[in-house]
Amino acid sequence: MYTKTILTVAVAASSLLASDLLTDAKKAGLKPIPSDKKELNKLIDNPKNPITKEKVELGKKLYFDPRLSKSGFISCNSCHNLSEGGDDGIGAAIGHKWTANPHHLNSPTVYNSVFFNSQFWDGRDPHLEAQAQGPIQAAPEMSATPEHVVATVTSMPQYVAEFQKAYGKDVAITFEKVADTIATFERTLVTPSAYDAFLNGKKNALNKAQQEGLKTFIDKGCATCHNGIALGGEMNAFNITGTYKYQDVGDFKGDKNGMVKVPTLRNITQTAPYFHNGQIWELKDAIKEMGRIQLGADINDAEAASIEEFLKALEGKKADIILPQLPASTSKTPKPDIN
Amino acid sequence: MYTKTILTVAVAASSLLASDLLTDAKKAGLKPIPSDKKELNKLIDNPKNPITKEKVELGKKLYFDPRLSKSGFISCNSCHNLSEGGDDGIGAAIGHKWTANPHHLNSPTVYNSVFFNSQFWDGRDPHLEAQAQGPIQAAPEMSATPEHVVATVTSMPQYVAEFQKAYGKDVAITFEKVADTIATFERTLVTPSAYDAFLNGKKNALNKAQQEGLKTFIDKGCATCHNGIALGGEMNAFNITGTYKYQDVGDFKGDKNGMVKVPTLRNITQTAPYFHNGQIWELKDAIKEMGRIQLGADINDAEAASIEEFLKALEGKKADIILPQLPASTSKTPKPDIN
Repeated sequence: MYTKTILTVAVAASSLLASDLLTDAKKAGLKPIPSDKKELNKLIDNPKNPITKEKVELGKKLYFDPRLSKSGFISCNSCHNLSEGGDDGIGAAIGHKWTANPHHLNSPTVYNSVFFNSQFWDGRDPHLEAQAQGPIQAAPEMSATPEHVVATVTSMPQYVAEFQKAYGKDVAITFEKVADTIATFERTLVTPSAYDAFLNGKKNALNKAQQEGLKTFIDKGCATCHNGIALGGEMNAFNITGTYKYQDVGDFKGDKNGMVKVPTLRNITQTAPYFHNGQIWELKDAIKEMGRIQLGADINDAEAASIEEFLKALEGKKADIILPQLPASTSKTPKPDIN
Repeated sequence: MYTKTILTVAVAASSLLASDLLTDAKKAGLKPIPSDKKELNKLIDNPKNPITKEKVELGKKLYFDPRLSKSGFISCNSCHNLSEGGDDGIGAAIGHKWTANPHHLNSPTVYNSVFFNSQFWDGRDPHLEAQAQGPIQAAPEMSATPEHVVATVTSMPQYVAEFQKAYGKDVAITFEKVADTIATFERTLVTPSAYDAFLNGKKNALNKAQQEGLKTFIDKGCATCHNGIALGGEMNAFNITGTYKYQDVGDFKGDKNGMVKVPTLRNITQTAPYFHNGQIWELKDAIKEMGRIQLGADINDAEAASIEEFLKALEGKKADIILPQLPASTSKTPKPDIN
């Protein structure tokens, strides 16, 4: 009996904490991935490039197809690896001819990037459709010309048929269309987590340590920048001209105001190393360093550990992806060029 | 009535052809992938490294994990891409630091490699378990030390748990064990095709053109080397010292007799470019060139086209592979080293 009473009180206290926390989270601008499928579908869709099953399936193939790159060796998935939290786990991204990113920029995760309002580390474009055009062409990434991409795709009758199925018989297969199709696939890469279940009202979805971590996260001001559905991706807020550890690594200057995009915290346990230049390997170090340089707050070890507990709850469920079988090259397919 | 009679005669003739062809194929040493699952399972198994569900699942993760490589960028799947017919579609394989294979060797397909009696282009080892150790360590491929691989795997509690589940609590996670586990996954990568259905007795599984192509294939002597279940992979037969097109590409000398392993013809439509040095891009050219230098036979355009029709029937069904989600790195996981 005694045990039962204690338990009841504990549960009640926890529920109370949970209720307050939900209010605080909402106030702080934190939003869940909707549990309602229709609502979610509306949210991830782009009216100018609507999601259809045909486009997603085709986009998945293109995402995994290294022949879109000049070398035939690098696909979108090489650096935004869907097996590895959606990135590559390397400090500065490498690409064509083993070239490290010249600004020492780290590959950001593709998971949940549909929820970002700004893409790229300088946040220069709001749309995944535009983002998808970037790395394919970038010399140190996939290093392909739009002409190479179009010639590759149109050289394979199966791809042409799938484009026609997705967009109609009269489709013009352009580079933009290829990027749009990849973006459609990327729009589906959302990873709901225990955190979302909690924000959607399931109070015991987060354990006590995670709830406390969320409270610390909010109280310390982390949600000032890491908010919205993605807990980031919505603004350029990191002042790159400030004094921070490893600021001398890479020559990236941020946007016109010297600001860098706030990255998402979803699946952050799977996407080390951290920061735009990929210099911090331990999540705890990243938390403390961010507190110091962004919030002017001294986050002690216990607080950092508490926030880390919360961040673990952002590890989301990845939908099963069946590895696509790509159409075979034909005599018209541009030959790989590794130089 | 007239039409029906013609049709009956045609079907009878086709069946007759099919029966003769089955006998000829058997005589030529051609064997199907067994349709009986038990028989197949026995055939692909290795008594010294038995296939279990746990090992296959773990092996699949390891196969897709680029962190086994020194750079953290190259996995088994980078060059033996299961989306691309099990190879990379590049002339000479590239790997660590973008190094092209120093002997200008082409990545062979991993699909159906379980049916090979010899692995590597010089056929130096009969077992996939030994093969899997090679590319992980080769400097121009994954460039990892056995110590790196063991340190990587043991740094992640999920991997350790999966090894224990697969091999028992007392498992010693060695480099050999990692390779064995990858090989177990590779042993399952078999792709039954229309050709197998035909050899297993379904006479209409190959259309007339494909049956005629098979007959040409046998009559011309192709099955002298391309036989067994894999239509290759069983002997070193290509005399590298002969005179052939592009013989000056690469310095590969073959085995101690100057011989190169006969590659499988399964899924050959998906694995251009051809030959050990990846110099022939068109299947028809490969057929004619092989006839000339291996059989001393002039294969004319019509015959090459006929053989090509048959080879298309070797395109097999790939089992659905759900992209594995890899365990997150920990502070103990060796950092990627791209140098």
